[in-house]
Amino acid sequence: MQPQTIWNFSAGPAMLPQEVLLQAQKELLIWNNMGVSVMEMSHRSPEFEALAEEAKQDLRDLLNLPDEFEILFTAGGAQAQFALIPMNLLQAEEVADYVITGNWSQKAANEAKRFAQINVAADTESLHFSSIPDVSTWKLNPAAKYLHYVSNETVHGVQFDVAPQVNKPLVVDMSSDFLSRPVNFSGIELIYAGAQKNIGPAGLTVILIRKDLLAKCTERVPAVFSYPTLEKESSLANTPPTFVWYLASLVFKWLKRQGGLQVMQERNQHKAKILYQTIDESNLYVNKVDPRYRSKMNVIFDLKKEDLLPQFLAEAKLAGLLGLKGHKVRGGVRASIYNAMPVEGVQALIKFMQEFEQNI
Amino acid sequence: MQPQTIWNFSAGPAMLPQEVLLQAQKELLIWNNMGVSVMEMSHRSPEFEALAEEAKQDLRDLLNLPDEFEILFTAGGAQAQFALIPMNLLQAEEVADYVITGNWSQKAANEAKRFAQINVAADTESLHFSSIPDVSTWKLNPAAKYLHYVSNETVHGVQFDVAPQVNKPLVVDMSSDFLSRPVNFSGIELIYAGAQKNIGPAGLTVILIRKDLLAKCTERVPAVFSYPTLEKESSLANTPPTFVWYLASLVFKWLKRQGGLQVMQERNQHKAKILYQTIDESNLYVNKVDPRYRSKMNVIFDLKKEDLLPQFLAEAKLAGLLGLKGHKVRGGVRASIYNAMPVEGVQALIKFMQEFEQNI
Repeated sequence: MQPQTIWNFSAGPAMLPQEVLLQAQKELLIWNNMGVSVMEMSHRSPEFEALAEEAKQDLRDLLNLPDEFEILFTAGGAQAQFALIPMNLLQAEEVADYVITGNWSQKAANEAKRFAQINVAADTESLHFSSIPDVSTWKLNPAAKYLHYVSNETVHGVQFDVAPQVNKPLVVDMSSDFLSRPVNFSGIELIYAGAQKNIGPAGLTVILIRKDLLAKCTERVPAVFSYPTLEKESSLANTPPTFVWYLASLVFKWLKRQGGLQVMQERNQHKAKILYQTIDESNLYVNKVDPRYRSKMNVIFDLKKEDLLPQFLAEAKLAGLLGLKGHKVRGGVRASIYNAMPVEGVQALIKFMQEFEQNI
Repeated sequence: MQPQTIWNFSAGPAMLPQEVLLQAQKELLIWNNMGVSVMEMSHRSPEFEALAEEAKQDLRDLLNLPDEFEILFTAGGAQAQFALIPMNLLQAEEVADYVITGNWSQKAANEAKRFAQINVAADTESLHFSSIPDVSTWKLNPAAKYLHYVSNETVHGVQFDVAPQVNKPLVVDMSSDFLSRPVNFSGIELIYAGAQKNIGPAGLTVILIRKDLLAKCTERVPAVFSYPTLEKESSLANTPPTFVWYLASLVFKWLKRQGGLQVMQERNQHKAKILYQTIDESNLYVNKVDPRYRSKMNVIFDLKKEDLLPQFLAEAKLAGLLGLKGHKVRGGVRASIYNAMPVEGVQALIKFMQEFEQNI
């Protein structure tokens, strides 16, 4: 028997706003009075170009993006950028600082090492990625062209509360908290985010890049992944993933209707707060991340009685709570509560957690 | 007023089978009894992994793919592969032969030159890409590791009738005629195809690669684009464009229901035949491509009275015939008649062309 309501806590591809899916469903065969689906349209048609431009403007509005920044859309996910960022921004002999605070920043640094010189300025693996050390302790390389960090670690549930204050241009992987809160662009050189958390379905990456950086990019990158080329051609040089872009455009409109990123931040803070409170007040669930750096997007926790984990996950699934299994490198439970997850979903999870604890 | 039926001759993103769009629409919010959309599912969920495997098997069945080949799915389009193929298969000092028969093979060679040594074995630009010279005249480099060609040129409407017989492993861009006819895999080392013609929406590329080639790939490629990594991780190492992959899986099922690639070839030959016949018998329309190499997928033609072209395109659009404007580098008219275009669409175009000619 199917439970009445399904709540999808998948880390990504993740839940999308119901309104967005309903609109996509309604106009799947006939978009914009064109008589064809948006996914059957040429990316060079005036209609698709208008959609692309409007999506960019909506994103610019949502972020209150300074004019110094350009928005690029590119195919694929953020992992590709782990290589393409150093390839675009560095020559092979040049150096960048990387801060390792979890699985994704570790992967980013390991991949970047294959294409440039990487200095690990800080690494919290020995702390089981449970906190972020003070910037004053980081070992920055004065020659480094940028400092890379991951603003939210989906696997380890660690999130920067504010951007680190270093005298170095920042390159930030915001894949999992992009659009979940306003961004202070001071010190930022480049932000990138895979779509499948807060933007839309998988297959698209958004890049925000300072325009003055475009002139300094290298030419050792495949043309379709070159930031100056993407900028010059308005991200339409080669065929982009048009349907994913279209869905992202609907998500941007939805975010505007919700009231923008300040409203989303308040909602996200509230959802995270009641969930962490449930964990902290229980005798069964535990989260060891330094409260200051607890993720508002991916709430991870363990069961003190570890052998109950399979039962917890199985019963949760039966109760309509999907995608709660932790990432394979971390284990435990992970509840991803991105923008599209309403507070009712978090409340349903809390209710289930409390009942599960009472019944064991 | 909207015409009753719309026929979409867009070169790509292109028309999709109506049955496929209807199924996608029906299950857009609730897929496979999961209570969520397929685009909200983790790519590592057993359900998505099963979809991915079944799609591969269906493709293997359709192509009658020899066991020596592996199927890879990767994000983005075929243009990315213009760089990623030489990066995967060649060291910078190694050489490959390229045959230039139109816009896309020219682009492929120009991009490959940035990453390896490229020998242009033949180039038909001086013939306005209107034919393909005999293989015996090609200037092959004995040291070349492979020979690259584009089996169908969408811009110039030129298509290889059979694979060239050279004593060299073949690397083939089949983006625009993949799945339109059976493939003879003799001599083939790698085939690649962007999705947005005959596979599904834009954002996905299919690669068929000989397994013995995987061990010889270089390590100078970003990890997510490395063929051995894609193979090892069943193309799920990083988050793939899951919704596009899902739609491709529906297209493969649709092709099976149609009777397979032999049936598609017969239909495609018939559609092309009646359209070229109309052109050849008219006093207004002209196609100068050597009949042996005329594309069955992209029928290009010009109006002998060139100044009538805007009127032709405008009236066609009013008659519900979309996407007929030729590519900007070629101009004229282009009717793309991929698998999803039924003969009725081609008949409607023919009727319009004949009436237009009578009425001027």
